[in-house]
Amino acid sequence: MTWTLTNTSLDQQQLLVNESLMFLGNGYLGVRGNFEEGYSSDYKTIHGAYINALHENVAIQYGEKLYGFPDDQQKLVNVIDAQGIEIHIDGERFQLFEGDIISFDRNLYMDQGYSERIVHWRSPKGKEVRLTFRRLVSFVIKELFAIHVKIEPISPIQTIQVTSTVNGDVTNYTEEGDPRIASGHAKLIHGNTAWKEEGYTKVKAHAKRSELEVACVTAYDVNLPDVDASHEAIDHRIVDTFTVDGERVFELTKYNVYTDTLRHEDQLFERGVSIQQNISTFEDMLTQQRTYLDEFWKVTDVEIDGDASLQEGIRFNLYHLLQSVGKDAVSNIAAKGLSGEGYEGHYFWDTEIYIFPVFLMTNPEIAKKLLMHRFSTLDDARERAKEMGHRKGALFPWRTITGPESSAFFPAGTAQYHISADIAYSFIQYYLVTGDEQFKQIYLAEVLFETARLWAATGFMKDGKFLINNVTGPDEYTCIINNNYYTNSMAKYNLEWACKIYGQLETDEVSSRLDVTEEEVDTWKEAADHMYLPYDEEKGIHAQDDSFLNKEVWDLENTPKDHFPLLLNYHPLTLYRYQVSKQADTVLSHFLIEQYADNDIIRRSYDYYEKVTTHDSSLSYCVFSIMAAKLGKEEKAYNYFNETARLDIDNLHKNTKDGLHMANMGGTWLAMVYGFAGLRIKETGLHFTPTKVEKWKHLTFPIRFHDRLLKLHLADTTMTYELVEGDALTIYHHGEAVSLEAGQEVKKDI
Amino acid sequence: MTWTLTNTSLDQQQLLVNESLMFLGNGYLGVRGNFEEGYSSDYKTIHGAYINALHENVAIQYGEKLYGFPDDQQKLVNVIDAQGIEIHIDGERFQLFEGDIISFDRNLYMDQGYSERIVHWRSPKGKEVRLTFRRLVSFVIKELFAIHVKIEPISPIQTIQVTSTVNGDVTNYTEEGDPRIASGHAKLIHGNTAWKEEGYTKVKAHAKRSELEVACVTAYDVNLPDVDASHEAIDHRIVDTFTVDGERVFELTKYNVYTDTLRHEDQLFERGVSIQQNISTFEDMLTQQRTYLDEFWKVTDVEIDGDASLQEGIRFNLYHLLQSVGKDAVSNIAAKGLSGEGYEGHYFWDTEIYIFPVFLMTNPEIAKKLLMHRFSTLDDARERAKEMGHRKGALFPWRTITGPESSAFFPAGTAQYHISADIAYSFIQYYLVTGDEQFKQIYLAEVLFETARLWAATGFMKDGKFLINNVTGPDEYTCIINNNYYTNSMAKYNLEWACKIYGQLETDEVSSRLDVTEEEVDTWKEAADHMYLPYDEEKGIHAQDDSFLNKEVWDLENTPKDHFPLLLNYHPLTLYRYQVSKQADTVLSHFLIEQYADNDIIRRSYDYYEKVTTHDSSLSYCVFSIMAAKLGKEEKAYNYFNETARLDIDNLHKNTKDGLHMANMGGTWLAMVYGFAGLRIKETGLHFTPTKVEKWKHLTFPIRFHDRLLKLHLADTTMTYELVEGDALTIYHHGEAVSLEAGQEVKKDI
Repeated sequence: MTWTLTNTSLDQQQLLVNESLMFLGNGYLGVRGNFEEGYSSDYKTIHGAYINALHENVAIQYGEKLYGFPDDQQKLVNVIDAQGIEIHIDGERFQLFEGDIISFDRNLYMDQGYSERIVHWRSPKGKEVRLTFRRLVSFVIKELFAIHVKIEPISPIQTIQVTSTVNGDVTNYTEEGDPRIASGHAKLIHGNTAWKEEGYTKVKAHAKRSELEVACVTAYDVNLPDVDASHEAIDHRIVDTFTVDGERVFELTKYNVYTDTLRHEDQLFERGVSIQQNISTFEDMLTQQRTYLDEFWKVTDVEIDGDASLQEGIRFNLYHLLQSVGKDAVSNIAAKGLSGEGYEGHYFWDTEIYIFPVFLMTNPEIAKKLLMHRFSTLDDARERAKEMGHRKGALFPWRTITGPESSAFFPAGTAQYHISADIAYSFIQYYLVTGDEQFKQIYLAEVLFETARLWAATGFMKDGKFLINNVTGPDEYTCIINNNYYTNSMAKYNLEWACKIYGQLETDEVSSRLDVTEEEVDTWKEAADHMYLPYDEEKGIHAQDDSFLNKEVWDLENTPKDHFPLLLNYHPLTLYRYQVSKQADTVLSHFLIEQYADNDIIRRSYDYYEKVTTHDSSLSYCVFSIMAAKLGKEEKAYNYFNETARLDIDNLHKNTKDGLHMANMGGTWLAMVYGFAGLRIKETGLHFTPTKVEKWKHLTFPIRFHDRLLKLHLADTTMTYELVEGDALTIYHHGEAVSLEAGQEVKKDI
Repeated sequence: MTWTLTNTSLDQQQLLVNESLMFLGNGYLGVRGNFEEGYSSDYKTIHGAYINALHENVAIQYGEKLYGFPDDQQKLVNVIDAQGIEIHIDGERFQLFEGDIISFDRNLYMDQGYSERIVHWRSPKGKEVRLTFRRLVSFVIKELFAIHVKIEPISPIQTIQVTSTVNGDVTNYTEEGDPRIASGHAKLIHGNTAWKEEGYTKVKAHAKRSELEVACVTAYDVNLPDVDASHEAIDHRIVDTFTVDGERVFELTKYNVYTDTLRHEDQLFERGVSIQQNISTFEDMLTQQRTYLDEFWKVTDVEIDGDASLQEGIRFNLYHLLQSVGKDAVSNIAAKGLSGEGYEGHYFWDTEIYIFPVFLMTNPEIAKKLLMHRFSTLDDARERAKEMGHRKGALFPWRTITGPESSAFFPAGTAQYHISADIAYSFIQYYLVTGDEQFKQIYLAEVLFETARLWAATGFMKDGKFLINNVTGPDEYTCIINNNYYTNSMAKYNLEWACKIYGQLETDEVSSRLDVTEEEVDTWKEAADHMYLPYDEEKGIHAQDDSFLNKEVWDLENTPKDHFPLLLNYHPLTLYRYQVSKQADTVLSHFLIEQYADNDIIRRSYDYYEKVTTHDSSLSYCVFSIMAAKLGKEEKAYNYFNETARLDIDNLHKNTKDGLHMANMGGTWLAMVYGFAGLRIKETGLHFTPTKVEKWKHLTFPIRFHDRLLKLHLADTTMTYELVEGDALTIYHHGEAVSLEAGQEVKKDI
């Protein structure tokens, strides 16, 4: 069961949720779990297919537009729809909402890479059939989305008619009143051409302003010789109709190959056809999926013994991260992945802080692609820094697809300067985990120098302190504040590393191209050394910012339950006026850079901020879980972890219909590996301070480090370290050096 | 000359400016100074007529809409256009941009209440005429806009044809890229009906969402018996054509009567016709204008001897305030009055702090109408306070027409909570100047109680201080800050007066209706007594807010001249990060409530903030002028004053085309009366601390106080106090009590 997600609900709300839960993707292409045959007219569906980074540019409307507000916003496009397959049984249209459902199964196989629906259906007029829909989005041929339909007559049937559609004229989903969902501009792409040629259904569409194009080349395969096939082009869609005698089992496979101008130049149909020619059978593709996933799970799977529900959640989360993460450096991973349209398909800091570490420690080649995508946006970030009044440096956008800032509300957008330090942090992490010296000399150096410049330009020295004013930290319930502890500590780390790497440059290629001088590096050092990290003597904690601790504490206890999340029920100014945090802020920085505070401070900080945090952001629980584990608060660590593991499966935030919470999914893994197993990546290597968890029997997970594969096994009172592949390695267990040899296990008491 | 504004430029930019400078209005109706005959096709014009408060509701577009952001914005509507009068001389159309202009005069008569153009024109084919256009918007019949055209043949002319249009289908002006001007929604009203009936041209239009209607009933009068008159209806406009022999002088008068559903119920045409029936001749109306203005200037005119240019500026400003100020309690005075569409016809704090005092001290009956308009919006303000998370109280909107918040950018909009204290302040001022006890018991009490509640709900006690966090003060270059000195001091004053008036209530009508209790008043007293007024020990000044003085000082000296105003050239975050003020903030509060700081602080404060203020807002100079005068900085006082007096006439802010800067116009008067004459209104009466000004010979102005009319005369080294009308009165000259008897002058050394 823990490899299979099963849900057979036909409840309206759950169906919408299932569209996200059962989505299929491969990081390039994502298709929501819609029903091929459609819905009854009174059902709402969010119908969608997305190509990572394939976007339109839409003018942002402002009531008052000020200098530097972005003109446009990039929006992920709902691309050509190839899901449609209507089935008529002796003239009666198959639908799950009419007739009788004698049995219904619906599964997503996370070990096998496909989803399946099996329906035993009796039509209103009494005809019985068993229908099996299987679909996959290939991990091997990234452009491919295939559907296999099997129709088995059970009662006598004359004729089966299958009508399959590929539609180039689709719209995006919109909804009023929730700032997390688009509220306008439903029409982002427009059909260009739709025709049948060389046996292929070819449909092309384009986004007018971004000038990006997408095409779908579809081929069909049937199991019977005497199928009456016809097709027609209606506007921008092609409808293929297959009619067969109803006596035998009829199987139809629909192979949809998507291409787009971000990856396939202008040869969309040509490339589509050429890819089609390399596809064998549906069963072969299933085998390929299995092979790919075997490899993935080998280096990624986390096993929990003793809690099947958690186990399901963990695998679900890892599987969906894999399905959504861009693997081509042209794209990244959107806040909702490829599972829905929430947050417009934008990439946020979610990548660097919550998702990247998972891939870094399990599939570093994918992690590197994420960094390379960010690196490709550096020119845009330099441009944006200038626009924001800085002479030098790179300011990464709060929300973007290909690089330009797409945030329309700067207090909780552009003002989150910390994203630049978050990105720098992820580049540093990559270097620490892979030891890739070439990467360090080229990419790490450039990113660190340009972000260090940003901090030097944003802050200033006053009375011996380096101050950074008017930014927003991770907590969006307190915007535009001074000396946010998170931001300042991340900036300090960023600056320190920029100085360090400058000292380790082997050539002056980067520094001379960027015109970095010793004098400039000295100013970074000064800023780092004197970075102001606000501290409240009385409370003995770091203050979230200069003013946070002076505000009134929000009365969470007496806030009605239906007033959460607060952002949907209170004006930002109301929230800003109180000590109330949407998510971990200071607590998060104590996780990421624990060396800036001692354990007593970290403990007091945790205790304090926990009381004022609503966790209205799905990025919060995992951080509290990690830090609770660190602080020996096992019960809390477990409870927070529990919130993350099944947040989407159980639709805990009530908006899974708009897409899965990717960062939280990464957070589940972080909670296990950084939380319970207590991993920290330091310049000296891997450090573990595992925690005993009584709720389950054991926790087992692999990690990759400097070309090695390790397996960690946390059980009861012991932690077992196994070096599965690679050269001998020293790791640290509660500070004690432990030498590992390949094939060897070392067991340590917790 | 100082009663007449003359400008005969035909330069494109100056013509646009003149449209504002030469606008005519009466507080109800405003008509821009457009040319009746039109422009050549390559000229831009901002064509407009406005009825105060007549608005459409337009949905505000947000890139990200959060809770409590207003759905709609009210926008002043460009109403029915009755300006059009084309003239054909033997078939050649008269235009100032073709043929020869032998002479051209253009005047606005501020003592007579009309404007005039006299053109001696030779057509391209050599026909010569003298054309005189006179127009007025009546101060007596508020609905009336009349145009008188006189056409005198000079060379032999066969036929004169005059074509006059009333058009119900007009659009508003839009422009991209300047947040102070609307950038969309040009079409706010739509023509309903246009017909000719009972000799009247009748045109009606409506705004769809506000459901407001406006009508124009037009009548014509001609001086000759044998005029061939015809008319036609084209879409939503009526075109009346008059053809006469070209031998004699032809005069045509066009009487346009506007009515609207905010004032004339649903009987727009009926009321329009009825008003038409009471109109006599154009000359009679000119006489009425003169009579009205004689009375106005008697109680309002400020004379400066020795500087005609300043004198012109002062009269111009006062005249235009009169033309724009709402006098019916249905309307107020817009930031641009009725002279243009800048700031959408919204009412801001400009009214209370910059304009209301002028009327209060000269025409208190008009001042009271302004208060009554605000009072009529109290329910909206109570509603808004709730929406902003306050259990009780009234939060007045930053921008509005009839009451709802129309601000689309809350950091420099709704966050300016101080407007509620500003309104309370104006109510207090009214009571101090009129001594109206009934007003105090009813209106003052209710406004004070509801605003005091707002402050009690917004701030909180901490460590013995009452703190108000996350508001924006007058300086919009530093938004969402804590303990803005201006806001806190105004709130303190507001709370103190609420307590005081509670103690003076003669009945419990207001307090019991509002459920105000002794206990609640105690909390107001506590807040007032402990209000935190941030003070910097080292600098010896009040800090603009908790963080202002800790920021870097903006390098104004090295900022390129073309980067001003800064708001059009820097992102708000960039501005927020520096010590740089758009306008007087702390300095303004030292003027309004000088008792909260001693003179040394006030002096240091002036010196400090002057260095970081750009005066990018037109509301700044007058405050610096007043305070410079108080501090004996005569030269500065004079220079700042000079910037205010002719800001629009000389188009110093380069945007007079979008309308006149009403608050600055009030500021000119404030600079003279509060600045040079040193007036302060205290509970003990009128206090003067006049300043010697060497630049002019004398300054003379009337003021009204407690049913009296005084005349003040500041000359060289003396100030003369004359009680023109009313009972004996004691005023204070440099703190010394001076008794005045009616008809008597008292001269004092400065």
